[in-house]
Amino acid sequence: MVSDADPQWLAEACAARMWATDAASMALGMSIVRVTPGTATLTMTVRDDMVNGHGICHGGLISALADSAFAFACNSHGTVTVAAGFEVDFLAPAALGDRLVAEARELVLRGRSGVYDVVVRRDEEVVAVFRGRSRSLGRPVLEDS
Amino acid sequence: MVSDADPQWLAEACAARMWATDAASMALGMSIVRVTPGTATLTMTVRDDMVNGHGICHGGLISALADSAFAFACNSHGTVTVAAGFEVDFLAPAALGDRLVAEARELVLRGRSGVYDVVVRRDEEVVAVFRGRSRSLGRPVLEDS
Amino acid sequence: MVSDADPQWLAEACAARMWATDAASMALGMSIVRVTPGTATLTMTVRDDMVNGHGICHGGLISALADSAFAFACNSHGTVTVAAGFEVDFLAPAALGDRLVAEARELVLRGRSGVYDVVVRRDEEVVAVFRGRSRSLGRPVLEDS
Amino acid sequence: MVSDADPQWLAEACAARMWATDAASMALGMSIVRVTPGTATLTMTVRDDMVNGHGICHGGLISALADSAFAFACNSHGTVTVAAGFEVDFLAPAALGDRLVAEARELVLRGRSGVYDVVVRRDEEVVAVFRGRSRSLGRPVLEDS
Repeated sequence: MVSDADPQWLAEACAARMWATDAASMALGMSIVRVTPGTATLTMTVRDDMVNGHGICHGGLISALADSAFAFACNSHGTVTVAAGFEVDFLAPAALGDRLVAEARELVLRGRSGVYDVVVRRDEEVVAVFRGRSRSLGRPVLEDS
Repeated sequence: MVSDADPQWLAEACAARMWATDAASMALGMSIVRVTPGTATLTMTVRDDMVNGHGICHGGLISALADSAFAFACNSHGTVTVAAGFEVDFLAPAALGDRLVAEARELVLRGRSGVYDVVVRRDEEVVAVFRGRSRSLGRPVLEDS
Repeated sequence: MVSDADPQWLAEACAARMWATDAASMALGMSIVRVTPGTATLTMTVRDDMVNGHGICHGGLISALADSAFAFACNSHGTVTVAAGFEVDFLAPAALGDRLVAEARELVLRGRSGVYDVVVRRDEEVVAVFRGRSRSLGRPVLEDS
Repeated sequence: MVSDADPQWLAEACAARMWATDAASMALGMSIVRVTPGTATLTMTVRDDMVNGHGICHGGLISALADSAFAFACNSHGTVTVAAGFEVDFLAPAALGDRLVAEARELVLRGRSGVYDVVVRRDEEVVAVFRGRSRSLGRPVLEDS
């Protein structure tokens, strides 16, 4: 039963289950660095098919990286949880070849609602800050099959 | 001179110039339906490499579509303008094969700052609403070369 | 029964019921201009106890006006509905004596969730734009007593 | 000169200067607990003129408390800085008599733009989370006179 599971084991098992079918994150070349209960760290390197008309990484794709980190963090407790929405601020542009690291952490959980913060960095520089609102659907990520 | 240009001609010329180098929007299979001064309508069909671990379109990619529509709308007046950030709310999931349409329109411009609203629909249903904050950089999209 | 009520009658009856106990909106000197199903227009004049350390109307109070307009709009259908959160952008400062007008309108309703847009103006100028997220609690505003 | 000032002295001097004319925060019964470079903690107790039509503290006034904490934090470095906008999520209602504490901290500064997080609590419970976007105007808070 999920409720008896070790929290770290559960976080990693949920991430593995989600990752296996997360075609979008894979297609964008993301990889998971670390998942713990309530947190997730993912990376993505800016490819030449991620650059926009201003010659910098498309903001929507920086957001997609942050959104994936948010998704792994908010599903880490074992309950299927989806994004209700998010807010993102772009602080610095990212260029072709930059390796971006997104760190998501749980800020607050209350009932079925949660708020998660994600910071996207290139080395030490903050590229974007993201705040996601989550909504739990109540069913387990690891369903008995 | 840009300031003498017909606004509709300028909007379309800026879109063409931006689109030519917007590898990210092209790689995501987007296409431009229409651009006018302060507005842009783009479409994207959900492919199998856009689906996430919950079997629905990755929210970050819905946001990327909205963000592209926002970008074409806020650059339509001829001045290079970038996203400072945005807020998005997901109202309904999008599935594999869904054709999404994002309509962006200018809400307010004041000095170098602007606010744009984007609605993403599948047929008549609203999938997401997006509000973008823009910042003009002051130089022309169509530079003499 | 509420479900048989005329929508306009219901919107006005809900507003009257809410206003009677809305000490906060009254204390800030707000007044209701008009309420219809899904919309509300309120006004507030900037008093000397609403000015901040920069000599302009406190942004939190501009937000409070927008939030009240949002509340009357999202409760206009007869079901108790609360704010889950909001996003606001300040476009122009408001000064002592300015009469602010906030117009709220429903953007989308889906299940218990809704999104409402509010524009705050002084004459024709946009002072702030606000986007509110609502959550219905499911019980009637006009309870039989 | 401001640039030579001790950062903690400067933060307190700016807060004192701003507070002296911040009629709005005073009228709402706020008080400053502590200001340091990049942070500020303020409190406000929910009065009977702060309650809305649902019998709980008006969300706009919770936001006003957070916005004041944000203002003192983002002006603490000595440069006049205003709110460009903010995002707030309400996690729990606040009732008449509740003493709310808002803690603001700087998340990131880049050029004239900054992002600040504020958490509003009643005892240990999180009532609201707030993310503010600031814009520096470039002139000193403590002008020679």
